[in-house]
Amino acid sequence: MTMTIASRCSPFASLLPFALLAACGGRPNAPAGGGADVLALMQARNLSEQDVNAALKTYTPTGRHDEYYQFASGGHGGNLIVIGLPSMRILKYVGVFSPEPWQGYGYGDQSGDVLGSVQRAGHTLTWADMHHPALSETGGDYDGKWIFVNDKANPRIAVVDLSDFVTKQIVGSELIQSDHGAAFVTPNTDYVIETAQYPAPLGGGYAPIETWNENYRGAMIFWRFDKQKGRILPAESFAIELPPYMQDLADAGKLVSDGWVYCNSIDVERAYGGNLEGRPSLEAGASQNDMDYLHVLNLRRAEAVAKAGKTETIAGMRVIRLQTAIDENLLAFVPEPKSPHGVDVTPDGTAVVVGGKLDTHTTVYDTMQMAKLIEQKQFVGKDPYGVPILDFQAAIRGQCEIGLGPLHTTFDDQGFAYTSVFIETVVAKWSLKDLKVVEKIDTHFNIGHLVAAEGDTVSPDGRFLVAMNKWALDRFAPVGPLLPQNFQLIDIAGAPMQLLYDMPLPLGEPHYAQIIKADKLKPIDVYKPIGFNPFTEAVDPFATVAGKERIERKADGVHVYMTAVRSHFTPDIVRVKAGDTVHLHVTNVEQAADATHGLAIGSHNVNLSLEPGKHCNVTFKADRAGVYPFYCTEFCSALHLEMAGYLLVEPQ
Amino acid sequence: MTMTIASRCSPFASLLPFALLAACGGRPNAPAGGGADVLALMQARNLSEQDVNAALKTYTPTGRHDEYYQFASGGHGGNLIVIGLPSMRILKYVGVFSPEPWQGYGYGDQSGDVLGSVQRAGHTLTWADMHHPALSETGGDYDGKWIFVNDKANPRIAVVDLSDFVTKQIVGSELIQSDHGAAFVTPNTDYVIETAQYPAPLGGGYAPIETWNENYRGAMIFWRFDKQKGRILPAESFAIELPPYMQDLADAGKLVSDGWVYCNSIDVERAYGGNLEGRPSLEAGASQNDMDYLHVLNLRRAEAVAKAGKTETIAGMRVIRLQTAIDENLLAFVPEPKSPHGVDVTPDGTAVVVGGKLDTHTTVYDTMQMAKLIEQKQFVGKDPYGVPILDFQAAIRGQCEIGLGPLHTTFDDQGFAYTSVFIETVVAKWSLKDLKVVEKIDTHFNIGHLVAAEGDTVSPDGRFLVAMNKWALDRFAPVGPLLPQNFQLIDIAGAPMQLLYDMPLPLGEPHYAQIIKADKLKPIDVYKPIGFNPFTEAVDPFATVAGKERIERKADGVHVYMTAVRSHFTPDIVRVKAGDTVHLHVTNVEQAADATHGLAIGSHNVNLSLEPGKHCNVTFKADRAGVYPFYCTEFCSALHLEMAGYLLVEPQ
Repeated sequence: MTMTIASRCSPFASLLPFALLAACGGRPNAPAGGGADVLALMQARNLSEQDVNAALKTYTPTGRHDEYYQFASGGHGGNLIVIGLPSMRILKYVGVFSPEPWQGYGYGDQSGDVLGSVQRAGHTLTWADMHHPALSETGGDYDGKWIFVNDKANPRIAVVDLSDFVTKQIVGSELIQSDHGAAFVTPNTDYVIETAQYPAPLGGGYAPIETWNENYRGAMIFWRFDKQKGRILPAESFAIELPPYMQDLADAGKLVSDGWVYCNSIDVERAYGGNLEGRPSLEAGASQNDMDYLHVLNLRRAEAVAKAGKTETIAGMRVIRLQTAIDENLLAFVPEPKSPHGVDVTPDGTAVVVGGKLDTHTTVYDTMQMAKLIEQKQFVGKDPYGVPILDFQAAIRGQCEIGLGPLHTTFDDQGFAYTSVFIETVVAKWSLKDLKVVEKIDTHFNIGHLVAAEGDTVSPDGRFLVAMNKWALDRFAPVGPLLPQNFQLIDIAGAPMQLLYDMPLPLGEPHYAQIIKADKLKPIDVYKPIGFNPFTEAVDPFATVAGKERIERKADGVHVYMTAVRSHFTPDIVRVKAGDTVHLHVTNVEQAADATHGLAIGSHNVNLSLEPGKHCNVTFKADRAGVYPFYCTEFCSALHLEMAGYLLVEPQ
Repeated sequence: MTMTIASRCSPFASLLPFALLAACGGRPNAPAGGGADVLALMQARNLSEQDVNAALKTYTPTGRHDEYYQFASGGHGGNLIVIGLPSMRILKYVGVFSPEPWQGYGYGDQSGDVLGSVQRAGHTLTWADMHHPALSETGGDYDGKWIFVNDKANPRIAVVDLSDFVTKQIVGSELIQSDHGAAFVTPNTDYVIETAQYPAPLGGGYAPIETWNENYRGAMIFWRFDKQKGRILPAESFAIELPPYMQDLADAGKLVSDGWVYCNSIDVERAYGGNLEGRPSLEAGASQNDMDYLHVLNLRRAEAVAKAGKTETIAGMRVIRLQTAIDENLLAFVPEPKSPHGVDVTPDGTAVVVGGKLDTHTTVYDTMQMAKLIEQKQFVGKDPYGVPILDFQAAIRGQCEIGLGPLHTTFDDQGFAYTSVFIETVVAKWSLKDLKVVEKIDTHFNIGHLVAAEGDTVSPDGRFLVAMNKWALDRFAPVGPLLPQNFQLIDIAGAPMQLLYDMPLPLGEPHYAQIIKADKLKPIDVYKPIGFNPFTEAVDPFATVAGKERIERKADGVHVYMTAVRSHFTPDIVRVKAGDTVHLHVTNVEQAADATHGLAIGSHNVNLSLEPGKHCNVTFKADRAGVYPFYCTEFCSALHLEMAGYLLVEPQ
């Protein structure tokens, strides 16, 4: 059989010998399916060529690892989501602010101390509204060691350790009553930034809402992070009081702008709703003016001011009062178009991009120009509180006409910016140099945040972008009135941009996410030495050595020193009396990767996850006489079901 | 350019013109990437032809729906997982036994009544160890209406409504202290079966473990389900007492065996551990005998016995005592090989397949033969309690030599059975007719359960099988010491079986799952009429009509009648006094699909999910004076951040 191929196919003709070789499988009489049945499958599954490309760009065979991790906030699911790229498979949900029993997070052991470490208004909190994750940075690049996340509803910050993917600390201050511009880190993770959103009297307490202008305030908290300890140090943290403008997003400067912090606001009108009281809803009231204020903060100077003691302590937090911030020239405002959203510093640190939300532009502010204006005190006015205002035209490099509803911006390694355009439901790619859109790609639907690989660092990778869409509508098989979100992976390596993959987000509502090259993370796979407590990060004093298991009755209750190994617990019979306090100290003495056991105590709401080498302490009351099985919850071995025992609670 | 193609390539040669056309994109000068770059991508991403086939068999383009839903138990994550096939994307996690804030499940509204409806030993439970989901059946086929799941640790059964994917009911009895053979349904969902696993004194309470033989028992509960109400009726439910043999899995007969129930056991030895007390661990003690007992129950007759009142009420449950079961010929035993696992009735109901776990066989029992032996009382002995025993050889059709550690079996539409082989880490495909293995495929690693499409119904679909592997080891990018499980999708339509896709299970540890054709489900997308309460399944008496929002102070507290619509709550200012009880009645008055709002009340641990049309009631104490923002947590619109208000708690 011979065939002539027209030269119009030249881009592919050179591949033809290889294609034939591939098609023939290099073997005579290759069985059906032995070779690549591309065409047959395209027809059978109604796949276009674009679909085939997308499939082959994302499919990840068994045993192959993804190239990138995407860490996405869980929104009001309260946990952190870890996704692999380019496969778009979810690798893990990490318990952060909500109890999660599979990981044994908040079901008996010392993880409960972390979960319960911050109350608010005297209330225990068992959920969060997580918005923005921030990977730890060194020199403005991700270092793969920690990730920080916020809680908008009950303002707190959590520290998740990326050596074992476990939440190690939660902090929070009653200085503020909500946050949104959080968490964001400075380029060497000296500070984790948490910015209030909905104004309130600083430190909690009541003031009439009619005294909004006088008594309601925002604040930006700088939580000091210690890289040696891997913990935030509340005592070395401080805050700056801000006017009641509903601060929104924040970002730290980098390289030339390292030491500056930028934050936008959405309610300079100082509206606060009251739709049954004769005032317009916030929706209308906060949108009246053409401009709000971009906040420009000099963090280096603020740090010095705090160190010099020019603070007032409110709710345990050292606060630089607004007047002090003005007097010390720490803070200036620049107009930004109407109800903005998105504050994103460019990779080289020379500019800040703000999305217009109700405008059609992104505005590009020049960081060095603003720094100069502030240093030289070239102000053109003041706000009602006395905060100096910079001239808009002098502060900006320019604006880019984007489309309807630009929100957030991320960056690649080719000098392009990518902005999410919510109402128009596209990603707009534009040139930072020319301030012109070069391309748009549809999203499905109503994109919120977006992120390109390492896009908010000093050296983005380009290659992949994920659009995090808010409305899935008809994209997925129906699951009732509450739909998943839709994460769409987009190839930005070439032109045009190519939609690769729709991933339903099955639990939670992510807002922001970050994408990090997988080889930057170095997680452990077992805890060493045996008896390790991940929360104290040392061998636990109560760790049980194999062969030394025992039960001891002491003044404070019954201490059970237990080990877990395939496929039994020792001891497997625990005898106590009704009313006893039981202190269980259990060590998984295995060291093989994935040799995880669980430990559930029936009817007592206790479940532990015992990874290899890990030690857990649990204290509970055996308050009711009875016979309660306990057993291994994590399938570990052929005789997993026999890995069980009994808690025998004798009547008094 | 001309080319000769050798005839050895004949299977593919006929495709060549199409391939060329495809390669050229049908257009002159097709841009790079305009056609299908199969070969280039194979090289760039190191994909084999098998990988290409697998990618094209699973890739699902934007807007295309999956063909099947897989419902998987969450294990000790306590929730239900919904996965789409063949894409293997997770579509939803449904809150069942654990509070889940994204869905507003257990964070203030009436979902808390469902979650908290069953206490055990006086304790509130906020987690479960979910093992086996059971889709509701009509005539032995899935009808897509409900799904039932169990809690092994705190034995309970939950009913999830598949019209809205919400948990509507949880029931449980303190008759038993754990379960495992649960949930399983009879072919018309008259009953949901829950079988105890670890023996204990019936009804709770204490007895020394040394009185195991006399006082410790198992039981099988038959929860009566009412299809009109969509609810289990505890008052019409009953149980049968069983010896303390650690019953394991259960299955209901179908077609010719409809009316029979089968259940295996793993500890006929009546061992109970005591490894610090001079007795062997359960692991060893329960594995000593060559045989355990398959339990064969006559449900029709048991139902009649219960109806006739021949029961004793224990812990509120009507129980047919073991002696009554014997006297009424309700129960017989058949030997089954050593520590078996897996009880699976074949699609035609003529046989039951039991996995050997520590044996190398599956044993195929003949259901009609066993029924006949029982009716004719052809017994060959009794157990220590007097339960009659059938002859092994007379009861079986035969055995199939499978491999090391056969567990569970599922079925296709071609007369084949597929058994998971844990230790050998394969799926074994074997002929039900010949009782011979025809093929094995590797799994990665250590497969637990498996399921083929509709495989446990009277009419399986074949086509796809999912291996649910317990050890992921090196399959995925590392996420710390606690690894995901690995679900592997396998194409069983042709021969050989083909591994298609590795899916990490990022939260929870599924045990069993079921796969249902997507078109059998008819979920709603909005709640109608406006004001609908999913838990009472009617318009709520407190539903708020748009335009009639108000705040009313009554004897029992402050009633706030609120609506939610893009982008405001009305009222958006709520004024109460410290110490007030607040009753919030909020209705989402939208009717557009996906127009979901959330409602978080800062610092009060309240978060609601308000799907279109839905109404929620929340009661909480405003116990501390202060200013607390509330706001919409589910991104709904361009002005989502402005969809906020204030709870103002004035000092007394």
